[in-house]
Amino acid sequence: MNEPDFIARLRGIATDPAARGLTDDAAVWEGLVLTHDMIVEGVHFLPDDAPQDVAWKLVAVNLSDLAAKGAAPVGVLVGYSLGDSEWDAAFVEGLGKALRHFGIILIGGDTVRAPAGAPRSLGLTAIGRAPTGGAPSRSGVRPGDRLWVTGTIGDAGVGLAMRLGQVDPADACLAAYARPQPQLTFGLAVARHVHAMMDLSDGLLIDAERMAEASGCAIALMLENIPLSQGLLSVRPDVLDTRLAAATAGDDYQLFFAAAPEADAAIRKIAAGLGVAVTVVGHAGVGEGITLTHRARRIALPDRLGFAH
Amino acid sequence: MNEPDFIARLRGIATDPAARGLTDDAAVWEGLVLTHDMIVEGVHFLPDDAPQDVAWKLVAVNLSDLAAKGAAPVGVLVGYSLGDSEWDAAFVEGLGKALRHFGIILIGGDTVRAPAGAPRSLGLTAIGRAPTGGAPSRSGVRPGDRLWVTGTIGDAGVGLAMRLGQVDPADACLAAYARPQPQLTFGLAVARHVHAMMDLSDGLLIDAERMAEASGCAIALMLENIPLSQGLLSVRPDVLDTRLAAATAGDDYQLFFAAAPEADAAIRKIAAGLGVAVTVVGHAGVGEGITLTHRARRIALPDRLGFAH
Repeated sequence: MNEPDFIARLRGIATDPAARGLTDDAAVWEGLVLTHDMIVEGVHFLPDDAPQDVAWKLVAVNLSDLAAKGAAPVGVLVGYSLGDSEWDAAFVEGLGKALRHFGIILIGGDTVRAPAGAPRSLGLTAIGRAPTGGAPSRSGVRPGDRLWVTGTIGDAGVGLAMRLGQVDPADACLAAYARPQPQLTFGLAVARHVHAMMDLSDGLLIDAERMAEASGCAIALMLENIPLSQGLLSVRPDVLDTRLAAATAGDDYQLFFAAAPEADAAIRKIAAGLGVAVTVVGHAGVGEGITLTHRARRIALPDRLGFAH
Repeated sequence: MNEPDFIARLRGIATDPAARGLTDDAAVWEGLVLTHDMIVEGVHFLPDDAPQDVAWKLVAVNLSDLAAKGAAPVGVLVGYSLGDSEWDAAFVEGLGKALRHFGIILIGGDTVRAPAGAPRSLGLTAIGRAPTGGAPSRSGVRPGDRLWVTGTIGDAGVGLAMRLGQVDPADACLAAYARPQPQLTFGLAVARHVHAMMDLSDGLLIDAERMAEASGCAIALMLENIPLSQGLLSVRPDVLDTRLAAATAGDDYQLFFAAAPEADAAIRKIAAGLGVAVTVVGHAGVGEGITLTHRARRIALPDRLGFAH
């Protein structure tokens, strides 16, 4: 069974409104926002990634889900699979540093020892407070909305290629892969101005398709507008293939949100105040699915829109 | 690094009171009780266990932690590792039935696909409401308290031996292994009468030792008082070795609690009203660690007090 099939079945038993039909990044329940993400060795991180980076990523990917709901993080529960002592000790050190960095508490969890040779499977549950006015969902996009992203897209994908020795290393992209920065402050500040928001974890195209589907509308993306970093452009030419690769690589942990054109000024002011780059990458219309253009030319959807299990 | 060493390091970063020093079954935060337990194929369940039973166990072991805090369960987030489709479908069916049985909601979670051949690693976060008057901890035992258990002890251990073909099967013990019943109703009702409470997951002796350590007192257990089921006694003789095996096998998911002798009548009344068996198995004193007696004869602690990673 693939992941969408499995989630469709889970949806049949997740009928409470708090679950948001399991289409959202997080659950919203009694003023709290709750999320649980797992990362698995060999799937979400490399066996030779630094354990401190793995700890950071485990925290960051979950806090990114809270950021997408405009939530302020409070605490985490961790599920940990013991391995060799040196790695475990470095992981705890990194976990402590990440939690201090984000100002959140470790409130519990569980430790198991998997059978010898099994890949590490780590889970984290993050709890945050929902923003006043309510947490944005994925399903609120309205025709006429503009679609925005924070930061730059595709850095972590190039960073992974660097880690695998396929591309000469550059610090900015390696950092985007190893130390993703959830957009918590911006998410909290912008929440009341958006119609829908999610974080980009599996790739801009697949995540945009999910938002379009959840909202029952169409999303058109202008590939030439996707913000690419100097680090990425130092190793890749600014051509269509580079932009498609950036839009499907995943692991961005930037925010993707829809807002009415009337909210432009408020959004730009918040972004400027926080030093966060924001870029309009598309707009929503009546219809379904996503369409792509590059410099006003229609581009066929690639076979692979992003990372899917 | 073994589990105690790892938890000791985690404790260094879990300094908030909500974490209860990571010595408790669950975190208690703003009127909520939160717990996260993982179960791993080949460690906590057998590869050929029925997926419906695995789903039940994943829910039950977490709700047992809530029961120990007198909490009323509300909802869960699940972390799931995809495998073959038939197993996955049966798991979802079993998960839905378990959640309906306990009257709780699925509010979110995550699905991953582990590398081929990796054992399944499943996590669940359960959220409940703390009882009025506060959730009992492990650390409140006072010298002079009586130590109680609910139900019977050792059934799941014998059930596992039956599943492994080492003992002729008997329904009651197989059910205790496959379908543990968290003592939620009793836990909620008794919470205000106890000084300390925990659930028995790793074995009565190791869990009693943990409670003694957390409380800074000594616990004396009378092995002859440990309640054994008719199912267990139909395949095992009532001798010391049987009682030591029952007290160290784990997977009981009964409650173990300490209360002043003055609370006896109230505890027995609650138990009788709910049809739950309760038995005094020991008492607390000044000192540290656990001591065992069998028919007034002092018994040395076995090398292995229970299940430890």
